[in-house]
Amino acid sequence: MAIFRYVECRAWAWSVEHPQRRLTLASPPSSIVMFPLNFLALLSAVLVGHVACQTSTYFESGVPTDAPVPGIYTGQYRPRVHFSPPQHFMNDPNGMFKDADGLWHLYYQYNPKTSVAGDQHWGHATSKDLYTWDNQKIALWPPTNTTYVYSGSAVVDKNNTSGFFPHQDNGVVAIYTLAVYTDHAGVQNQNIAYSRDGGYNFETYANNPVIDINSTQFRDPKVFWHAPTEKWVMVLAYSAEFVIGLYTSPNLKDWSHASNFTHHGLLGLQYECPNLVEMPLQGSDEPMYLLQISINPGAPLGGSIAQYFPGTFNGTHFTAVDGAARIADFAKDNYAGQFFSGITGSEKQVSIAWASNWQYTSVVPTGSEGWRSQMSLPRYNYLKKASQIGYVMVSEPYNIETVYSGELAYNTSLGNSSILIDYSHVPSGALYFEANVTGLTTSTLQGMVNFTFMSSVSGEYVRGGSPVNGDTWLDRGHTYAFDNPYFNDKFSATGTYGDDGIWRVSGVIDRSIIELFVNGGEQSATSLFFAKQPLDTVRIGAAGIAPDAKVSVGVWALKDTWAEQANANGTVVGNLTMSSY
Amino acid sequence: MAIFRYVECRAWAWSVEHPQRRLTLASPPSSIVMFPLNFLALLSAVLVGHVACQTSTYFESGVPTDAPVPGIYTGQYRPRVHFSPPQHFMNDPNGMFKDADGLWHLYYQYNPKTSVAGDQHWGHATSKDLYTWDNQKIALWPPTNTTYVYSGSAVVDKNNTSGFFPHQDNGVVAIYTLAVYTDHAGVQNQNIAYSRDGGYNFETYANNPVIDINSTQFRDPKVFWHAPTEKWVMVLAYSAEFVIGLYTSPNLKDWSHASNFTHHGLLGLQYECPNLVEMPLQGSDEPMYLLQISINPGAPLGGSIAQYFPGTFNGTHFTAVDGAARIADFAKDNYAGQFFSGITGSEKQVSIAWASNWQYTSVVPTGSEGWRSQMSLPRYNYLKKASQIGYVMVSEPYNIETVYSGELAYNTSLGNSSILIDYSHVPSGALYFEANVTGLTTSTLQGMVNFTFMSSVSGEYVRGGSPVNGDTWLDRGHTYAFDNPYFNDKFSATGTYGDDGIWRVSGVIDRSIIELFVNGGEQSATSLFFAKQPLDTVRIGAAGIAPDAKVSVGVWALKDTWAEQANANGTVVGNLTMSSY
Repeated sequence: MAIFRYVECRAWAWSVEHPQRRLTLASPPSSIVMFPLNFLALLSAVLVGHVACQTSTYFESGVPTDAPVPGIYTGQYRPRVHFSPPQHFMNDPNGMFKDADGLWHLYYQYNPKTSVAGDQHWGHATSKDLYTWDNQKIALWPPTNTTYVYSGSAVVDKNNTSGFFPHQDNGVVAIYTLAVYTDHAGVQNQNIAYSRDGGYNFETYANNPVIDINSTQFRDPKVFWHAPTEKWVMVLAYSAEFVIGLYTSPNLKDWSHASNFTHHGLLGLQYECPNLVEMPLQGSDEPMYLLQISINPGAPLGGSIAQYFPGTFNGTHFTAVDGAARIADFAKDNYAGQFFSGITGSEKQVSIAWASNWQYTSVVPTGSEGWRSQMSLPRYNYLKKASQIGYVMVSEPYNIETVYSGELAYNTSLGNSSILIDYSHVPSGALYFEANVTGLTTSTLQGMVNFTFMSSVSGEYVRGGSPVNGDTWLDRGHTYAFDNPYFNDKFSATGTYGDDGIWRVSGVIDRSIIELFVNGGEQSATSLFFAKQPLDTVRIGAAGIAPDAKVSVGVWALKDTWAEQANANGTVVGNLTMSSY
Repeated sequence: MAIFRYVECRAWAWSVEHPQRRLTLASPPSSIVMFPLNFLALLSAVLVGHVACQTSTYFESGVPTDAPVPGIYTGQYRPRVHFSPPQHFMNDPNGMFKDADGLWHLYYQYNPKTSVAGDQHWGHATSKDLYTWDNQKIALWPPTNTTYVYSGSAVVDKNNTSGFFPHQDNGVVAIYTLAVYTDHAGVQNQNIAYSRDGGYNFETYANNPVIDINSTQFRDPKVFWHAPTEKWVMVLAYSAEFVIGLYTSPNLKDWSHASNFTHHGLLGLQYECPNLVEMPLQGSDEPMYLLQISINPGAPLGGSIAQYFPGTFNGTHFTAVDGAARIADFAKDNYAGQFFSGITGSEKQVSIAWASNWQYTSVVPTGSEGWRSQMSLPRYNYLKKASQIGYVMVSEPYNIETVYSGELAYNTSLGNSSILIDYSHVPSGALYFEANVTGLTTSTLQGMVNFTFMSSVSGEYVRGGSPVNGDTWLDRGHTYAFDNPYFNDKFSATGTYGDDGIWRVSGVIDRSIIELFVNGGEQSATSLFFAKQPLDTVRIGAAGIAPDAKVSVGVWALKDTWAEQANANGTVVGNLTMSSY
């Protein structure tokens, strides 16, 4: 098949310049289909012996190539305000960008055939508000059946630095790892593909790979534009060496190695999915840079987790502010988070993470509904100097009110009592809740906020508490649909009182996931849970709060963002309009 | 009481030179008792207006001053091969040294009145083998009833650098923090006391404190002799600033600040209990230095934990090998570990840690037996470069065979099966177990070792598993005597295969604690557990191991190290012979 693959590459390159003559036909689903018109191009490539290019495409049998994968989004575990794939397996978010019209693009590691990791493609979805997602057709396909499209990023090349977009300012370039894997790990190198239609159809660059160092552990490129030096900057992982490499390029094609960032923070057993992003520091006019690195396996709670380093970037080198390790989440279902491209560094950044853990992701019970993995909520992120502990990256839900469907409770003077809400009638089964203690002083830092979400049928529950100025805790151990030696039950984190009179806890619960935020996201936790029966009742309240302080509690029902998209058969078919021409 | 305290100081200093005339009388328990003989000294001190010295002693009513606190060591939760206090509350190990006769001295943070933290004194115990402990009388008392003797260390001043020991080479100097606490935190400063009888009776230095920077968060001095520069070196914590200070002294009295080590690794909310210790690097002739720092609260698993940094030390500055954070334990009951003084840097070091967590230590059910907290097993420690992950500090049980009382099982060709042992007849209830897989190759890294300790009465159990080349896990969640929101059930860590054909798991279970060691201590876990009924049965075995590999399993009963010390009434009275003269 080697010759086949090489000649196809040249033919593909030819066909890019002659878009009417596309080499591969998307449907019906089949292996590589050749048009006779390109035979001359093929022959010429064979005769010339051109071997550097590998831009064939392997369209796997049974996977739709010109339409989204359809999905049923009504299962008991299916989250209604968190993205999940229509069918089968999803992991790392990829290629995230916000286009000039404000449309958000999310791609993701996608196995279109089974509900465990593998066979990686880039799935695709778009949204106007980061909550209601429009499934798109698969965006990136591997070149062969032993090569996989691993993680990466995307940028809008508005000034056509790449030369791919002579006639538009909204060209999209995806930068991603191709990984060969037969019965063992082969080479991982970096490749680019470009889209002239806003991110739906991509063509691979004729001269891929753009970076190849003949390594089997070299992946996850995240690219951004650094205006002061007028360069594209890439961070990626030399995974087994605990090194993040920084490369620069004027045009997304020609890359120079600039520096390495090595052996910082938690090592785990490998570094993955780095992000280098400019973000604001609260209270300062000068944004800072933040480097996020994910590690897996070997996280302190087991398996996978993300960490971050605030610092500065001069165009070639990232310098962390100090030698500290700062973990991004106090539970264990937050990995490989990526920041959207297209938001300037002086604005709050926006990110989404994969809400699972590699220790058990392949066996979670959502498999019975034909899918595995969901993303976290979209988050706003910015840096802040928190009381006592200094730099934290705040992570708070992005505009959750977008998906309010109704107020279930709102009590601004709850005091030391609680409210009980039956939410069995809420179609999504998803809620947002907030408990705010105000009017505190340094001598009245006492008492706590508590919440319990339970099933009135099975008695299962997810509960948590947040002592004022103490250790917020979360317990998923009383849900019984998933017994796994790595599925830790309890999580906790120490919040710090900011001398502003306030202590806050908020969260979203959405069928098989709960996210908790302390003091507006100074600490946050992302945690899956699997109950045999749906949770349908919540008690939330406070105890031991000082008489001078005030307790406000609110609970809102959230929309079912998929229900409105289902057709008469209950299937979400996604966007059928963006076929290749 | 101020004058009282000051004049007592001068009189004390006088009485030190005249040991027959001791100012304070140890028994009967009382407040400060004055001898008329010293009245002249008192008066002179008042008239001179000497105010710098604070070496009075507050002997709290009801606490034995000239004999050990007695204890009953037969409770269901009482460990039999881990040190625990006779009654009431213990935390950080202190003052640890091995004397020239090979006798090990352990001191500890001790509350002699109640079973929660506070009212800190230094308790004391000695051992010939680090397992059978001889309780001693309280070694250090606070000077007033609003000052507490916090943590610290001890050294043998064999060359009399301090001038305290003109006639001996086994003088002991304790270096510790005194912390004032009324209704708020007052000053914390560093003080010394010296013992001429090998570590049983101490006299406080007349010119204390030796370091005072007027800080309320400055504590936990650990001192060692640095031969190349012929200086005593102290590391201690500027706790709220995430800084470890390094000081040097020629004589233990006069200290100069040398450098700071700041903002490395996990910060938590404060740094505590640093140790800087020379230890061997396996495979190298050159020892390295290791800095261990404990953090609390804010550990990734919640509450408290220890971390370490391999590096180099030049007499004034410690330089870590890299920017990585390395956590000392994959569970959450390991804090404030201290290394014994008196072991040269080219030998394996020996340490003991406090086996609890600040999130719940004050409420664990051992309180029903009149005591709280135990120490970890004594551990051998050395550095090693493990496969894939590089530097690890190995932590393995110190000579556990010392306390074998009988072999319960030993099978060198177990294969893929298991053995079930009834150990209800073992008086200590404590076991050591090992499972070794040998004959592995890189293509046969499959299968796992499993173990379950259970109660045949209640069905409660503690279980764990170690997949070859995978994530070892431990689950204490099926024991039901302690329900606490911070008492996480599951722990896991990723071991690495060292290409030596071997995968090993071993551990000690001892009534209310289990310690697990992977690959000889490259990863280790210390975990309390509280079952309603004693665990009395163990199943241990293997599954899925390749046919070429071999599985060996051994289980040994361990001694009850306290039983032989109990008198006819079942009370362990400790060493009654070392009263002050």
